[in-house]
Amino acid sequence: MQQWKTRDRKVILDESPWLKVESHTVELPSGQVIPNWQWVTTPDYINVVAVTEEGKFICFRQVKYGLEGDTLAIVGGYLNDGEEPLQAAQRELREETGYESPDWVSLGSYRVDPNRGIAMGNLFLARRARLVATPIVDDLEEQHLHLLSRAEIEQALATGEFQVMAWTAAVALALRNL
Amino acid sequence: MQQWKTRDRKVILDESPWLKVESHTVELPSGQVIPNWQWVTTPDYINVVAVTEEGKFICFRQVKYGLEGDTLAIVGGYLNDGEEPLQAAQRELREETGYESPDWVSLGSYRVDPNRGIAMGNLFLARRARLVATPIVDDLEEQHLHLLSRAEIEQALATGEFQVMAWTAAVALALRNL
Repeated sequence: MQQWKTRDRKVILDESPWLKVESHTVELPSGQVIPNWQWVTTPDYINVVAVTEEGKFICFRQVKYGLEGDTLAIVGGYLNDGEEPLQAAQRELREETGYESPDWVSLGSYRVDPNRGIAMGNLFLARRARLVATPIVDDLEEQHLHLLSRAEIEQALATGEFQVMAWTAAVALALRNL
Repeated sequence: MQQWKTRDRKVILDESPWLKVESHTVELPSGQVIPNWQWVTTPDYINVVAVTEEGKFICFRQVKYGLEGDTLAIVGGYLNDGEEPLQAAQRELREETGYESPDWVSLGSYRVDPNRGIAMGNLFLARRARLVATPIVDDLEEQHLHLLSRAEIEQALATGEFQVMAWTAAVALALRNL
């Protein structure tokens, strides 16, 4: 199958590093040209399903601007400049929770939007996590750490308590590896 | 926990119906004000994991502008104006594949981005699907329908062949309901 080709691109909104929008001129394999295909870039990110040595899942109760009420969440954050996804995952786990893990599994890297791009989300499972430090609280959002059992995580997944697509994907994939 | 409040909003890019960007003035519970928080809107969408009466998973091989090479995909599409997610899911299943299902399960509705919004993705499982019509080919992308076994789907999930976050989430959740 033939890919679509980018014939031209121009930036139409630049709020870097948080958001950039380009207008692409796209050519289809048929020769048809689409003159204004919006391509959106937000920072690539990681999410981590971390499980302690005792088999507990490290979660947060938190508020997020884009979500209603408070939500159950997992470790997550944007990649720093030049950082590999696994490095970012290990950094965010330690910063947000004070835990470290000797046992990392990649759950895959996924495009957020197949049409407009948006970002790559990189999902990880961290097993046998141990508390080694004090969390660094530098996020703007209020959040509280909770250790959940597998049964509680499965219940939360089934009832949609992880309100974000990537968090739900990560938890569902992680459970297949545990 | 207290929510953040939207104190003001203005549209800074309007490419409706595909993309709209607003700049929000956001007030945190602490009183801190963030003057330019970008809020992005793309259309809400559905994805459907459809399984035939014979237990085969209805998938596509297709190209998408935002993905590399060809990808394994599931039924999906944007909601039409005024359409409920389940209606859109049933319509897209019939249009894209010619199949109908008498047995629908909601796998949840998820926010694409907890910070900037983007869209709600609504995931469904359709069981006991039967071929009743000829697919309507109106998408711009080349796509080919494939019927996969459960073992093939599990393998594709494990190897990241579903390149999109929502497709992977839907397949992983569906497998928990089958």
